[in-house]
Amino acid sequence: MPVNYIPPTPDELLPVPGVSLGTAAARIKNWSRDDVVLVRLDPGSRAAGVFTQNRFCAAPVIVCREHLAHGQVTRALLINAGNANAGTGSRGTDDARACCAAVARALDCAEYEVLPFSTGVIMEPLPVGRIVAALSHCVESLSPSGWDAAVRAIMTTDTVPKAASHRVEIDGTPITVTGMAKGSGMIAPDMATMLGFVATDAPVTGVLLGEIAASVAAASFNRITVDGDTSTNDSFIVVATGKAPIAPIVSADDLRFAPLLDALQRVAVQLAKAIVRDGEGATKFITIAVEGGRDDGECDRVARAIADSPLVKTAFFASDPNLGRIVCAIGNAAIEDLDPACVSFWLDDVLVVADGGRAASYREEDGKRVMAQAEIGVRVALGRGGATATVWTCDLSHGYVTINADYRS
Amino acid sequence: MPVNYIPPTPDELLPVPGVSLGTAAARIKNWSRDDVVLVRLDPGSRAAGVFTQNRFCAAPVIVCREHLAHGQVTRALLINAGNANAGTGSRGTDDARACCAAVARALDCAEYEVLPFSTGVIMEPLPVGRIVAALSHCVESLSPSGWDAAVRAIMTTDTVPKAASHRVEIDGTPITVTGMAKGSGMIAPDMATMLGFVATDAPVTGVLLGEIAASVAAASFNRITVDGDTSTNDSFIVVATGKAPIAPIVSADDLRFAPLLDALQRVAVQLAKAIVRDGEGATKFITIAVEGGRDDGECDRVARAIADSPLVKTAFFASDPNLGRIVCAIGNAAIEDLDPACVSFWLDDVLVVADGGRAASYREEDGKRVMAQAEIGVRVALGRGGATATVWTCDLSHGYVTINADYRS
Repeated sequence: MPVNYIPPTPDELLPVPGVSLGTAAARIKNWSRDDVVLVRLDPGSRAAGVFTQNRFCAAPVIVCREHLAHGQVTRALLINAGNANAGTGSRGTDDARACCAAVARALDCAEYEVLPFSTGVIMEPLPVGRIVAALSHCVESLSPSGWDAAVRAIMTTDTVPKAASHRVEIDGTPITVTGMAKGSGMIAPDMATMLGFVATDAPVTGVLLGEIAASVAAASFNRITVDGDTSTNDSFIVVATGKAPIAPIVSADDLRFAPLLDALQRVAVQLAKAIVRDGEGATKFITIAVEGGRDDGECDRVARAIADSPLVKTAFFASDPNLGRIVCAIGNAAIEDLDPACVSFWLDDVLVVADGGRAASYREEDGKRVMAQAEIGVRVALGRGGATATVWTCDLSHGYVTINADYRS
Repeated sequence: MPVNYIPPTPDELLPVPGVSLGTAAARIKNWSRDDVVLVRLDPGSRAAGVFTQNRFCAAPVIVCREHLAHGQVTRALLINAGNANAGTGSRGTDDARACCAAVARALDCAEYEVLPFSTGVIMEPLPVGRIVAALSHCVESLSPSGWDAAVRAIMTTDTVPKAASHRVEIDGTPITVTGMAKGSGMIAPDMATMLGFVATDAPVTGVLLGEIAASVAAASFNRITVDGDTSTNDSFIVVATGKAPIAPIVSADDLRFAPLLDALQRVAVQLAKAIVRDGEGATKFITIAVEGGRDDGECDRVARAIADSPLVKTAFFASDPNLGRIVCAIGNAAIEDLDPACVSFWLDDVLVVADGGRAASYREEDGKRVMAQAEIGVRVALGRGGATATVWTCDLSHGYVTINADYRS
């Protein structure tokens, strides 16, 4: 069960003018549900993306990057669950290209205008034949209100579909942002990875859309960690169809840029948090905010050292204010000249450590009270500058081991 | 239950001339067993150490470094279990010094000739009074054959005592090396940390002993990981009493240096592996050997990326040849220009990945057979140079979560 997350109802997911979604069951795994999604974008749409840093990046990631290098003119996204098409060598890229070619034929567009995404088990060949055969059903079912069916079809170890919408008024015109994501470990047993797609009807130029994708990812999907592993397939895509009847936004100096970025970030942050709330075995949602660093990078390192420590994560699971583990994790964050005597931290509003030692005011029962909550805030002050960083994570439970020790069947 | 580890019998632990050990019950925690160890070293003994890189290093680590800076002339080690004296600020260093001063009075030596070590819960004040009161019993029980009692008294979440002896002939004289260690997570729930002590009666100069300590640690305790966390208290100490009637070894060029280093390393590697075999919840012992790197550092990063990945560790626990997770971990090891097409890996003698993709010869049943073993070898070839690195680790089981989610009582 995810931590405090209720998926949106189908009618809460607002159609984005210029975007239609269709699904089909290609039986990539032994599932009866739909597992392939085709997203058709009207002519004039642009896309930009941010991809995994893993050196063993998957074939669809390689092909996505190639296709986006053609100028971000995008007419379709093809997404499959159940097979990651990763660790598959040159056959994998051939397979991803074959799927794109089939979509290009079906929609009468260029192959490079199709972006492929896969999530699932690594090192198995992609069943191209079954995916291509399923395309006609995807095309038949294309609908502007296909978001709910689509987000269900991209799930793997996810226990809930993750999607969100937001509407903002720009130039007196309502602009829609709708997005969907999947992921519950950064990469998971059989399968799983993080995929995120956010679409808007706002008109945005290609260059600016690239900046928007990087900026939105930095504030949302790059701020979460479930188990510290970066998948071979992680992808985040922003699509702008340009259907809204307003003048194109071409620069970050445009006064309309900030409200649009804010709307995209709201949706992306909701999706990113939903991934953590549905993290494998998660029973708690934890926000780790680090302040007072010399630069954002060192704040981020401290936040991740806490978020990824198995000992800290098991203490959260146990509701145990074993707070020496947080102290230890801060000390492990590779800040060479960190002075422990300047470090303080809080659990929600409870001061635990002041000046590097246990705060005189700290009482175990206060720590216990906060640790027992389903939502916990950790605030760390490094006392050496003005930079900040925030990371969202979950605990490490028996559920995580059970899910990940299950055989891939 | 540790993986394939049987602790030595008391008479397998050879006394080291010049070393006596005594123990006592200071009731630092709610234990009835001994929890304080005094190691007395005869005049002329020298010590050298290697300590945690954690920025929040514990008070005894700070005091150890100060005392060793006086010239490595050491007359006593004082070790307590149950309290780490870490995250305790300036009171912590005062407390560690007070304990050393009490030992110095009891043994009639200088305070800086006493090295303090603590392992246990973080952020609790050290019960100095109870430790000092226990010293007289430690002194009364001092004995050259006190190793077995001592190694039992330093245990925390360890399920077995970890000690080893080795004898080597140098200049026709038998030289003894005996060591003991504790640790089962790199840091653990209530307590736990890694402490290692190895003593020899060989005469070695102070400068050379420092080099020996670094070299032995690099080949033993620095090659293990249970959960990737470096404790606030990790310490490894080599003691040379110089009691053996041979001329002092003053340089690494001395022909007698290699057999002595080998004997010390044998004992240290046995202790280090015992820590992994007794890792919290461990059911498997895994050796990860990486070859073909440009330098040892990148081989080490790849080995640790595999060893510390929760997904790889849970796959080992499940005996599941879900080997895409190893591919993914290799890709996450931060080698910027790694070419996946040059990477191969083996499970024992089974070739799994060749040239970046699944080997044509690989059969799932072969992978399953190796994964089901209690001892597993992973060999990775990076195909870009001649460097190598090896890391020993264990799996991540329900037992780990249970041990670490237990409340600190």
